[in-house]
Amino acid sequence: MTENMNLVKQWILENKEKGTKLLQALVRENSTRGNESSAQAIIIEKCRQLGMELDIWEIDEEELRKHPSYCSDRENFEGNPNVVAVLKGAGGGRSIILNGHIDVVPTGDHTSWVKDPFSGHIEDGKLYGRGSTDMKGGTVALLLAIESLIKTGIRLRGDILFQSVIEEESGGAGTLATVLRGYKADGAIIPEPTNLKIFPKQQGSMWFRIRIKGKSAHGGTRYEGVSAIEKAIMVIEALQELEQTRNNKIKDPLYKNISIPIPINIGKINSGEWPSSVPDTATIEGRIGVAPEETIEAAQKEMENCLQIICKGDKWLEANPLEIDWFGGRWLPGNIDNQHSLIHVLSNSFTEVIGNKPIIEASPWGTDGGILSKIGNIPVVIFGPGITTAAHEANEYIHLEDVFRASEIIACTMMKWCGVADKRGDF
Amino acid sequence: MTENMNLVKQWILENKEKGTKLLQALVRENSTRGNESSAQAIIIEKCRQLGMELDIWEIDEEELRKHPSYCSDRENFEGNPNVVAVLKGAGGGRSIILNGHIDVVPTGDHTSWVKDPFSGHIEDGKLYGRGSTDMKGGTVALLLAIESLIKTGIRLRGDILFQSVIEEESGGAGTLATVLRGYKADGAIIPEPTNLKIFPKQQGSMWFRIRIKGKSAHGGTRYEGVSAIEKAIMVIEALQELEQTRNNKIKDPLYKNISIPIPINIGKINSGEWPSSVPDTATIEGRIGVAPEETIEAAQKEMENCLQIICKGDKWLEANPLEIDWFGGRWLPGNIDNQHSLIHVLSNSFTEVIGNKPIIEASPWGTDGGILSKIGNIPVVIFGPGITTAAHEANEYIHLEDVFRASEIIACTMMKWCGVADKRGDF
Repeated sequence: MTENMNLVKQWILENKEKGTKLLQALVRENSTRGNESSAQAIIIEKCRQLGMELDIWEIDEEELRKHPSYCSDRENFEGNPNVVAVLKGAGGGRSIILNGHIDVVPTGDHTSWVKDPFSGHIEDGKLYGRGSTDMKGGTVALLLAIESLIKTGIRLRGDILFQSVIEEESGGAGTLATVLRGYKADGAIIPEPTNLKIFPKQQGSMWFRIRIKGKSAHGGTRYEGVSAIEKAIMVIEALQELEQTRNNKIKDPLYKNISIPIPINIGKINSGEWPSSVPDTATIEGRIGVAPEETIEAAQKEMENCLQIICKGDKWLEANPLEIDWFGGRWLPGNIDNQHSLIHVLSNSFTEVIGNKPIIEASPWGTDGGILSKIGNIPVVIFGPGITTAAHEANEYIHLEDVFRASEIIACTMMKWCGVADKRGDF
Repeated sequence: MTENMNLVKQWILENKEKGTKLLQALVRENSTRGNESSAQAIIIEKCRQLGMELDIWEIDEEELRKHPSYCSDRENFEGNPNVVAVLKGAGGGRSIILNGHIDVVPTGDHTSWVKDPFSGHIEDGKLYGRGSTDMKGGTVALLLAIESLIKTGIRLRGDILFQSVIEEESGGAGTLATVLRGYKADGAIIPEPTNLKIFPKQQGSMWFRIRIKGKSAHGGTRYEGVSAIEKAIMVIEALQELEQTRNNKIKDPLYKNISIPIPINIGKINSGEWPSSVPDTATIEGRIGVAPEETIEAAQKEMENCLQIICKGDKWLEANPLEIDWFGGRWLPGNIDNQHSLIHVLSNSFTEVIGNKPIIEASPWGTDGGILSKIGNIPVVIFGPGITTAAHEANEYIHLEDVFRASEIIACTMMKWCGVADKRGDF
């Protein structure tokens, strides 16, 4: 291991408590959609202390809406800014974007949580709370990596662009706004919870809303009506079959350990307003995964065809067709060549820090990486601490040691990728 | 036809416009749950004009709650009174309760309505609007019948107790309150929309709420979670089977024209809060029909057993059992002997007014009749204008002529049942 890397490792070792406190502070701020400002304030203050150049701005919805890849049903971005903090390099090196999202998904049923969803409490080396894994842990890994370089006096040649974005969980308007604002780099790392695996390919995904009509009737003569719930079940079952068909087509070995590479998730159903009336409308909301090599449009088309087939096979639905709306979140799939130098640099850094070879897999979910790569033409790799099974769940947690390990690997990657400018420039 | 009946028929013929306007005014008042007062005000004013003794009171929830058959999740009855108006008889005759509910079910999806749900507009002899059939049309039939007797100078021997109650659609707290306040009679007619058929037996019913647990996960790795929606579908399918089993047992010939005598209706489902999360809770609300000879307790037990069997057959549900809550509405089944004199009197009146014999069937839905008969020990028959298929539906309507026909038959029944006191006492 190089001298610089030893310095970084040592600094991180000595500053674990500092990192833990930062993560705890971030988790304790509920940054669900529309409430991102207080967590962003912590990020801003941290970057200010690190002497980074700060760009803090509220998304201009009217401006962003003009872009074909913009998708959001959020009307108001006021008070909840995007943040980019730049650490200028000495010149002559490759630049890197380090991108984390600050928004977290809702907590779900509170009774399923052992403690308050925003407690940030620590037990057995695990820090608990909504957003700990997805992905404030990753963001802290980035900030610690940057700080370790600064504090050990290691100056890089290339620029570091740290981004703390909003709206990742709802379609990526935050990251899209950074690209449209002009932030580009020669490579990017997004530390979503890969459990320290390297994900060169990322599933894309889209949200959908399906509206189903029924015919109301008194529950006592329910046979006089048409239950929108029963029709919704037909739709759900057809989507389950579609999921199977789509996944049977995927042969990429990067997916060999993933049971359903591109799932269709039914996340919400709402129907009816009275126990003893036959419900006359139902709404389903969900998310369809898009394969790395597939386009958003092709996946949409396939699902729309599936719904048309259901309608044709059912007299009621033929007369009262399903309505589909591709609303809210949309994540472009990402795809970077396995042999890309960013993958090499990251893999080598992993081996240097951990000792063995990293696992390289396809991502089982979408990230903002699709926007960076497809819109920004920036090579992106997803690599971070935390495990997928903890994300979006009750009692979400992250192993703190993984955060520090990720931090070391990312610091090492930055040195190798951007180059080191000072006398310790032995990469 | 008797002289008295001719006078009544003639009066109703001449006052159709008056009756229509009264119904229109009632339908134009949105009297969904919690909003009953303005429609009740019209009823009160009408009874006052007719010189009836008025009893107008707000339900004392704390008092009523002590009764074992009280079931309501309504906390506030303030400002929305129950109304009983009494027309004292000359004495020596049988008394009769004429009971109508003023509350209406919600309108459902507004876009399914051709006109405003509370328009009260008339087209081709039909008056449209929420509550027109269920059951303001029936209530107007009662009021016209009473008025026809008063205005033609026919005095009855027995008392007439006209009741305009709240909460029928939510479990009958309004009618229960009349019984507990001491209102009893020798017989009762409830003009729910039977399409002028006579219903001696009424299905009872109860509402239920089933809570289903799942396990949250990111939609991209949905296989790591347990979808509460998928488990809810299992429950719905089991309830569909239970419905079949229960209905196969019913052999009563009064049900021969009813395709599902005691339906289980799934009226509501709500699950999930995020399209790309696996939903960790689902709630189903519905209504189970109770056979006229069955007890509420037996039906509950059968359904609870069914849910236990589902749980035993599923590892997840065994560890995370379904929760069932018998909330809100509960309607006792009603059952009066086919040979009861009230049925005879009503049948004969029907034949006298219409010419042919009435159809006698079992009611496909629950009414407040169960409370009057089971709690008040009052023989009850359900008979009124309007058709079930229009109730609880978009574009609910009633044929105005049926209202007037029902009114004549009910007036005739009152004369036969209560006896006529004056010189025209030829019944």
